[in-house]
Amino acid sequence: MPYVNIRITREGATAEQKATLIQGVTQLLADVLNKNPETTVVVIDEVDTDNWGIGGKSVTVRRKQGK
Amino acid sequence: MPYVNIRITREGATAEQKATLIQGVTQLLADVLNKNPETTVVVIDEVDTDNWGIGGKSVTVRRKQGK
Amino acid sequence: MPYVNIRITREGATAEQKATLIQGVTQLLADVLNKNPETTVVVIDEVDTDNWGIGGKSVTVRRKQGK
Amino acid sequence: MPYVNIRITREGATAEQKATLIQGVTQLLADVLNKNPETTVVVIDEVDTDNWGIGGKSVTVRRKQGK
Amino acid sequence: MPYVNIRITREGATAEQKATLIQGVTQLLADVLNKNPETTVVVIDEVDTDNWGIGGKSVTVRRKQGK
Amino acid sequence: MPYVNIRITREGATAEQKATLIQGVTQLLADVLNKNPETTVVVIDEVDTDNWGIGGKSVTVRRKQGK
Repeated sequence: MPYVNIRITREGATAEQKATLIQGVTQLLADVLNKNPETTVVVIDEVDTDNWGIGGKSVTVRRKQGK
Repeated sequence: MPYVNIRITREGATAEQKATLIQGVTQLLADVLNKNPETTVVVIDEVDTDNWGIGGKSVTVRRKQGK
Repeated sequence: MPYVNIRITREGATAEQKATLIQGVTQLLADVLNKNPETTVVVIDEVDTDNWGIGGKSVTVRRKQGK
Repeated sequence: MPYVNIRITREGATAEQKATLIQGVTQLLADVLNKNPETTVVVIDEVDTDNWGIGGKSVTVRRKQGK
Repeated sequence: MPYVNIRITREGATAEQKATLIQGVTQLLADVLNKNPETTVVVIDEVDTDNWGIGGKSVTVRRKQGK
Repeated sequence: MPYVNIRITREGATAEQKATLIQGVTQLLADVLNKNPETTVVVIDEVDTDNWGIGGKSVTVRRKQGK
């Protein structure tokens, strides 16, 4: 019954990519810790780049700086 | 001053239902742990079904499978 | 399959009180949103009072001030 | 490499204000704990007022009550 | 710069298993979304079984019931 | 009524440093967004270095590598 929260910037992740993340993380927890996939919850949060900061700057600003 | 985060899939919860959850959780913490409602914070996150996985599949896919 | 995270200060909540919180929140989600208890996850985090702040002060300090 | 999550109600915070929060928190962690800004992650979540409760009521309702 | 939080019950996960989870999730995000491992943060929280509920009961109680 | 969660590795932050973080973040939110300190909640989580990963490795391992 693990709970996994994946937080990424909202930069175009597709439904297929998110499905692959869900499947991959669930399989990883089954393989490594023998966790039951049926009660493994994976939640993906996509965050606007104005709302995500690293190095003291928002990702919006960093992208304009080519980072 | 408890902080309660309720995460559910975005599947049509109404403002009234969310108000009932907020009131119910706040009352529960007052009754069980004598917490002060005025500093009890309850935050409800509603998550797209593409972004919520269980059993290795997104809820979008599971709903199509009748789950 | 909701995920509920209850964060409280570590001030002596008993196993029975925590069990009552788990049962109460699970029942609330079943009653209000018809959620399945068997996939409703409730996680309680207990945080040291040095690590919890309100009003710009830690709870450790506020308790000494009779708050 | 700290991770800081700031959760506020969605009530009009501007990109500039959010940038100031990101910069301020990052600087605070550098000053107080000597953390490297380049691996300090700050994520701001803005939550609808129907989904944020305090005192057992949603912020939407409290605003109508002048609180 | 993704942030991934893995929450599991405190039931004996070893340092090696946790290292494998960290490596696996980081690789998954690199493979699926081309995320830079050097700014991918993975945090594992281990929660006491009294503090984790599913089906309205704590995991401590469920384990005694053979679940 | 903001909620701020600061997550850092458990590497010796003192009660005084944590108090300074609490006070600093609360002041920042008051200055930038005019938030009321009395309902601003700041929670600091300290995480074992085995449980924190960056670059695909745990901080425990990275520290041994001089990072």
